[in-house]
Amino acid sequence: MRMRKLPWAEDFLKEQDVVIKEPAALQGKWKETLKRDVLHLEIGCGKGDYWTKMALQYPEYGWIGVEKNNNVAALAVRKYTKQEKEKAHMRFINDDAEQLASWFAEGEIQVIHLNFSDPWPKKRAHKKRLSNQKFIAQYAKILADDGEIQMKTDNSSLFEYSIIEFQNAGWFLHDFSVDFRRVAHDEDVITEYEHRFMEKGQPIYRAIWKKYPMNEKNA
Amino acid sequence: MRMRKLPWAEDFLKEQDVVIKEPAALQGKWKETLKRDVLHLEIGCGKGDYWTKMALQYPEYGWIGVEKNNNVAALAVRKYTKQEKEKAHMRFINDDAEQLASWFAEGEIQVIHLNFSDPWPKKRAHKKRLSNQKFIAQYAKILADDGEIQMKTDNSSLFEYSIIEFQNAGWFLHDFSVDFRRVAHDEDVITEYEHRFMEKGQPIYRAIWKKYPMNEKNA
Ligand SMILES: C[S@@+](CC[C@H](N)C(=O)[O-])C[C@H]1O[C@@H](n2cnc3c(N)ncnc32)[C@H](O)[C@@H]1O
Ligand SMILES: C[S@@+](CC[C@H](N)C(=O)[O-])C[C@H]1O[C@@H](n2cnc3c(N)ncnc32)[C@H](O)[C@@H]1O
Repeated sequence: MRMRKLPWAEDFLKEQDVVIKEPAALQGKWKETLKRDVLHLEIGCGKGDYWTKMALQYPEYGWIGVEKNNNVAALAVRKYTKQEKEKAHMRFINDDAEQLASWFAEGEIQVIHLNFSDPWPKKRAHKKRLSNQKFIAQYAKILADDGEIQMKTDNSSLFEYSIIEFQNAGWFLHDFSVDFRRVAHDEDVITEYEHRFMEKGQPIYRAIWKKYPMNEKNA
Repeated sequence: MRMRKLPWAEDFLKEQDVVIKEPAALQGKWKETLKRDVLHLEIGCGKGDYWTKMALQYPEYGWIGVEKNNNVAALAVRKYTKQEKEKAHMRFINDDAEQLASWFAEGEIQVIHLNFSDPWPKKRAHKKRLSNQKFIAQYAKILADDGEIQMKTDNSSLFEYSIIEFQNAGWFLHDFSVDFRRVAHDEDVITEYEHRFMEKGQPIYRAIWKKYPMNEKNA
């Protein structure tokens, strides 16, 4: 997400309690801290529309947003500060997801959301994709046995790559759509990027993966 | 494929040697008969554009077309009769693919093509889909260990269903595209239906499945 630098972003992020400065210190203690048994994690949450609105719609879960870019992160956190409803079940991490598995304990997360992740079109940059084997290996660690990954994207090349990568890692495709917004899906918030692509009439691709096939460990 | 009845279709199909009246009698003898070591089978070949053009483009393989509808089958076979190049490596079956596994021996077929198969949108008709478990079980029998199924379709619902059905049957997604004609793909002939959907600007979905993951039995 390219955008101009916000001079206030860094200081603002430092001041806000919702922003966890040392996520590794909470490893294994997130449920306790957020007072929720089930945790959702969004990686690359951008300006935070999905993170804040999903947290409003599903207050029974904990919601952790991750965004490495200071400028959009600051906008996401500002959105949070302006929200008036209960929000003790939300946290934010302003860092690169690279070290994800050091932030969370094994099986600590129930659902990981990847929304319109950067497509990194050049072959040599594929390792930066959030559905690269290196990231998948970390997801496998922090996800509960019956947990899942939900991905939405407009990018056909990233989608095709992800379907094959998760399969090669032995994951199980639980749900799959090449035109997710063909029907409304009120249960799932439309992200900022998603809005743009829907307006252009582009299809939204979406997949849900689980670590094991149904009826094996997560029936 | 709805079309008007052709009064000459039935008699014409009976007269043509390329049309195999008792395919079960050739079980285990197709390679010998077609004088080819590698056989391709297209199920639901409609008016035969793909069957005839692929056979021209790849004369080193045997090409067997299957079409249950007499009227389109007759048009496909007429296309064949008008072709002047060598065509001893082609055969046609004017029947329902339901009994497929009785026509071919185990492992006799190398590639099965499913092009723009009828979508059967209603849930109770899903069992008629050519990617239903019952058909998949027959494909597993007649396909060589390193063989593959190639599917193309415009229909998102059929595509989504097929991806999940083949996965659930334990097959391996070898290639996968949500917009196959994004690039030209001269190696693969455009079918009649495909032409129509491309003209309308619709994406072509395409998948290739193998029975086993790469490096296991078919590296
Ligand atoms: C294309 S934007 C999509 C934003 C938002 N999810 C949406 O759908 O509107 C992708 C975002 O992911 C962030 N991102 C990419 N890789 C990341 C990583 N490794 N760790 C944290 N954030 C990342 C980028 O900074 C960017 O803000
Ligand atoms: C929608 S048309 C597509 C024709 C052609 N493949 C194309 O791409 O232009 C599907 C064809 O599959 C045939 N078909 C459907 N189910 C079949 C079955 N079980 N056995 C043989 N043919 C079948 C139909 O009769 C119809 O002609």
